[in-house]
Order: sequence, then structure tokens, then C-alpha cells
Amino acid sequence: MAGIEKFWDDDPTSLLRVHDGFVLDEARAADTPGFSGKKKDAEKALAEGADVLSDLQDMFFAASTLGARGSILLVLQAMDTAGKGGITKHVMGAVAPGGIAYHAFKAPTAEERAHDFLWRINRELPPAGQIGVFDRSHYEDVLIGSVRQLAPPAEIDERFVAINNFERRLTETGTTVIKVMLHISSDEQKERLSARLDRPDKHWKYNPTDVDERMRWAEYQKAYQRVFDLTSTANAPWYVVPGNHKWYARLAVQHLLIDALRDIDPAYPTADYDVELEKKRLAAT
Amino acid sequence: MAGIEKFWDDDPTSLLRVHDGFVLDEARAADTPGFSGKKKDAEKALAEGADVLSDLQDMFFAASTLGARGSILLVLQAMDTAGKGGITKHVMGAVAPGGIAYHAFKAPTAEERAHDFLWRINRELPPAGQIGVFDRSHYEDVLIGSVRQLAPPAEIDERFVAINNFERRLTETGTTVIKVMLHISSDEQKERLSARLDRPDKHWKYNPTDVDERMRWAEYQKAYQRVFDLTSTANAPWYVVPGNHKWYARLAVQHLLIDALRDIDPAYPTADYDVELEKKRLAAT
Repeated sequence: MAGIEKFWDDDPTSLLRVHDGFVLDEARAADTPGFSGKKKDAEKALAEGADVLSDLQDMFFAASTLGARGSILLVLQAMDTAGKGGITKHVMGAVAPGGIAYHAFKAPTAEERAHDFLWRINRELPPAGQIGVFDRSHYEDVLIGSVRQLAPPAEIDERFVAINNFERRLTETGTTVIKVMLHISSDEQKERLSARLDRPDKHWKYNPTDVDERMRWAEYQKAYQRVFDLTSTANAPWYVVPGNHKWYARLAVQHLLIDALRDIDPAYPTADYDVELEKKRLAAT
Repeated sequence: MAGIEKFWDDDPTSLLRVHDGFVLDEARAADTPGFSGKKKDAEKALAEGADVLSDLQDMFFAASTLGARGSILLVLQAMDTAGKGGITKHVMGAVAPGGIAYHAFKAPTAEERAHDFLWRINRELPPAGQIGVFDRSHYEDVLIGSVRQLAPPAEIDERFVAINNFERRLTETGTTVIKVMLHISSDEQKERLSARLDRPDKHWKYNPTDVDERMRWAEYQKAYQRVFDLTSTANAPWYVVPGNHKWYARLAVQHLLIDALRDIDPAYPTADYDVELEKKRLAAT
């Protein structure tokens, strides 16, 4: 197999996609679907993929400057410590900052709470030619929203409808939506939280509420299952990416993005000026 | 010398800084002040510096999460083809996207024109803990603004006053302002524009107005000189970075950022919770 495909036994995009009947409880967070190499192999593959991703993104951006529509939206959701930040740094770091619209959604501000939950999401959508990265997203409003009963069940139901309508319109208007849940095991999270508490330079990443949320692990898994059941659509599918091995998760998400760009198949735009004339004008200076 | 300083004969931050009596006409775009190595050495130095920059930025960001103030603003100005994009990609690519607030300022939109020229600048200022990167900036309003006479001379004069007041307030409130002019020679620009016209995959980067602007080279150099004379202040200095060698410019700008972060001297914040208690709570889950 040519290019980066040579690192894979099987296509992760299709292996990781949430299909009908998917059961989160049965997904194994330490697996590396489609990849039989070790950490070192994955790092080599990630470095090669970085160039591929960067080149495709350059073309994608170039096409947009002459009016091509289309953007990509990568939604990252996960339990704490799953590695959202690492994905952003190690996968997206390969792309020119001008090609990325990154946004981390925190607990809503007073202004945001004064609007519908999709209001702040809309404001951060990537423009044409860019890859938007949402570190958390509108899915918080149906995840923590239901687990913590921040809204009544009927409102949560309405939000699911609103999300599907919103994402359908997004994809209709040229945004490729890639929704990723980074899936770690409860044991792995315990180890990672413990590591944060052991290292003073990691204390800032820890918050006592992390343990509060951890105590509701089973409820969150159930809430994610409902998210997959209700919102993994043909146009805006979910991918459950095993995250116990960070190197695997990074490589897999990089592959999802490369696949999306290849599907878009961007091309450098044709000059909208007379190239020969410009050569003459330039030579005369 | 320890760390990345070992790559330098002399401190580029002080060598490149615009001092009283600086004359742009005498600056040599092919020089590599403070650095006697070759391209390969510079690439090695850049890779080592990437880790240093990334670690410092991580600390800077961490400190902001517990309330530390302070941000960095990197202003990039240059004639076309000087390499602003390459700086952004190759220097800032080392930093987690969440630590960067990148913005490219284009010709103002109708909405932007309906406001004062600093309005759109204010909206893109980096929050605490982030490095803002302005690919072009408010300086366009006194550069192309004066060369193309987009505003009367008296208004240009007022803008200079406004810029100095604006930047003084910025630095007073904790933003480190680093203003970089990437300096290439006229011959170098001609070659680079010519290369863009020769390569179909680079045609999108070329615009016929590039030659129009090129014809006003001397006027732009004069406008830059005036910018340096009027706005290179103690708190918000300009650095003229020779850009004929892209590898030098990238390394030098990286060094400016590392220096700025070292001056800020960020520290990981102390936990605002009881670490031992949290260890017990976590263990009990």
C-alpha cells in the first residue's frame, strides 16, 4: 500500500465509525483497531502523516481563497484526561495556525447562558478552507446536561432534535463534520488523575470536580451511548477512538482528518489573472 | 553557553532591536546577525527551540488558568513574500493551538471600515496566557494608508498618536508587545514572486496588485522608516529581522518569543485544593 496507508492493516475510519447497534460498554479502550505496530511505529506514521495532512490543508485553504466552499469541523468529546489536548497539539500542530479554528468550550458564561445552547457553537464554526477543532462542544449540553440534570428531560430531548437539525444544515452547506469520542477506561483515568496529583507541574490540570464527575462514570457512559444512538448520522458520524494508548488515538484522529480531506479532494485553484502578462510586468520592475 | 544560547554568537534580541538612529536603508536583508551557522545548524537550533518555546508556553498558559495576567502579542509586518506565513507555521506550530490566538488582517470589511481602525485590532487581542499572532496589523493603516493615500496626512499623524497610546495601555495591562518587520531585499522579492508565477500550485499566492505594490518599494521603505521612528518605544519595540534567509528569520523570531517568555518567567501555579485529600478521594473511587 502506498503512502501512509502502509502503516495500517485496515482502514481505521471504517473500523472506528459508530455503526448501528454499537455498544460503548463493549468497546475496548486499550485496543488499536487496524494498527498492529508499536508506539515507535505509530510515531513514525504520525510524522509522515503530518506532512500529508499539512499539504492537503494547504490545498484546501488555497482553494477557499478563490471561492471554494467547504470546511471541516472536528468535535472532540471525552471524559477528563482522555487526551483531547494532546490530540490538538500533536495532530493539529502540523497544520499552519491560519488553517485551524480552535476553540475550547468551558462552562457557559452568563452571556452564553442568556442564549440558546447552540448560539456560542455557531459563533465558532470554521470558515471555508479551515479545520475547526472543538475541544468539547454542544454535546456537553446533552451529556453533563443530562447527568447533572442541568435541564429537564424534555428539554434534553429537544436538544437532540436541535443538534441533528443543526448538523444536517452544517453538512448540507459544505462542512464535513467529524465527531470523535476519545474512549479511555476507568482504570486508565484513575492512573492519569493520580499522575496529575503526583506532579506539581500538573496540579493545574486537576480539579476536585474531576473526581466528582468520575464517580458518575457509569452515568456518563450511558449518556454517551444515547448520544451515539441519537446523533450518529450518515452525514455527521461519531467515531469512538480508543484512547488508552495516546499514540494510537493521535494517529487515528490524524487519519480521520486526512480521509476527510481526501474525500473533499481539494485542488490548487487556477489563476484568475494572466500569468504570462504578470511575468512580463514583474520582469519590468 | 547552555540551552539554545549555544547556537548564537550574540543575542539576536538586542541585535535586531530598532535603536535610536536606525536606518532601514542600511539594514542588510541577507545578513544573519548573531548567528554564524548554516541552514542546517539553524534547523537544528529551531527544533531544539521548539521544545523550549512549547514548554514555556505551557507554563504561561497554566499560570493563567489560576488567574495570572499577561499575554504576548507578536505583530508581523512585511512586504509581500517575506515569509510571514512560514514564521507562523514553523515557529508557532510548536505551540499547542490552544495557546495561540492567530489572526490575519486583510483589507478591512465594510463593518470594519464603519469603525475606527483600532476597533478590529482590539477584538483580536490575545487573552491571558496566550500568544497572539497578528499577520499584518494596525500598522497597515499607516503603511498602505500613507503610501496609497487612503487617509489624509493629518489623519495618518493622528493614527500614530493613537497607536502609541494603544500600545502603551496594552503593555501597562500586561501584554508583551513584539513587533517584527521581516526585511527582504527587492531582488529577493522579485525572485520569490517569479517563483510563484512559475509554479501553478503557488499561483493562488500571487495577486497582480503584488507588482503594483512592488513598484512603490521605495515609498514603502520610507513608510516603514517612519513607523520605526515614531513607534519603536521602550515597551513596544520593533525588531527588523533579515528575511532573505527564511531559516534565519524563523530562528530569530522564535528567539524573540522565548526571550519574552523568559522575561515573564511563568511558573506552574500552586494547587488551590488539598492535594493529599484529593489523593484519598481518588483512591476511594
